[in-house]
Amino acid sequence: MQTTTETGSGTVATDETNRLIASNKVEGTAVNNRKGERLGSVYNFMVDKRSGQVEYAVMSFGGFLGIGDSYHPLPWKSLTYDTSQGGYVVDLDKTRLQGAPSYPSSEAPDWSDPSYSRRIDDYYGPFPGA
Amino acid sequence: MQTTTETGSGTVATDETNRLIASNKVEGTAVNNRKGERLGSVYNFMVDKRSGQVEYAVMSFGGFLGIGDSYHPLPWKSLTYDTSQGGYVVDLDKTRLQGAPSYPSSEAPDWSDPSYSRRIDDYYGPFPGA
Repeated sequence: MQTTTETGSGTVATDETNRLIASNKVEGTAVNNRKGERLGSVYNFMVDKRSGQVEYAVMSFGGFLGIGDSYHPLPWKSLTYDTSQGGYVVDLDKTRLQGAPSYPSSEAPDWSDPSYSRRIDDYYGPFPGA
Repeated sequence: MQTTTETGSGTVATDETNRLIASNKVEGTAVNNRKGERLGSVYNFMVDKRSGQVEYAVMSFGGFLGIGDSYHPLPWKSLTYDTSQGGYVVDLDKTRLQGAPSYPSSEAPDWSDPSYSRRIDDYYGPFPGA
């Protein structure tokens, strides 16, 4: 994940510093595309237990307070945090997102199956700066 | 973070697989020491925005549903996930924890100050397997 221009420390919350961000601050944060269109918000994210590396952010659509009707996992590296928007930006238009891997809230994917994460990686391909 | 013996895939929840764990599953998970004493639970964790690397788990004491009265940040690498206990294990006795860096829920630390994270790192030192 890249970080764009930060504002002065006086305007940055203590749990949203230059370098570190709190997990519960990431959850619920807005996700926009580069046109400024709201795509959704971060529902949760998937962490590699052994390495502690964040690998996927799961974006929710619809619903309320981050409890969405459908979930779209995105490669974490595709997200850029933009302090001016107070949210994440991803280079993705709505049409491309509609065809992307997703699941309803009632059917969690089998993350233990490597082919599932591969499908996400393949769909999005390498992102600039990833 | 290390991962200990996993049970068969049939008993592992889809958001708690061999390799990946959901952020909101980490939050609220119990933290015990090696004697099996309950130390607290994970309140949240701090992620490096740029690299996506998890660096600290913040453990809460007292309180209710993970909203604790005092928070102790621990180096992420000090935590081992133990599926048999369904929680994290850290090699830390209660006395040592009492003297560790902590903050009340009303006073979030200044994570943007590198000396704060250095103080945590210095207190705990290198963990086995870290």
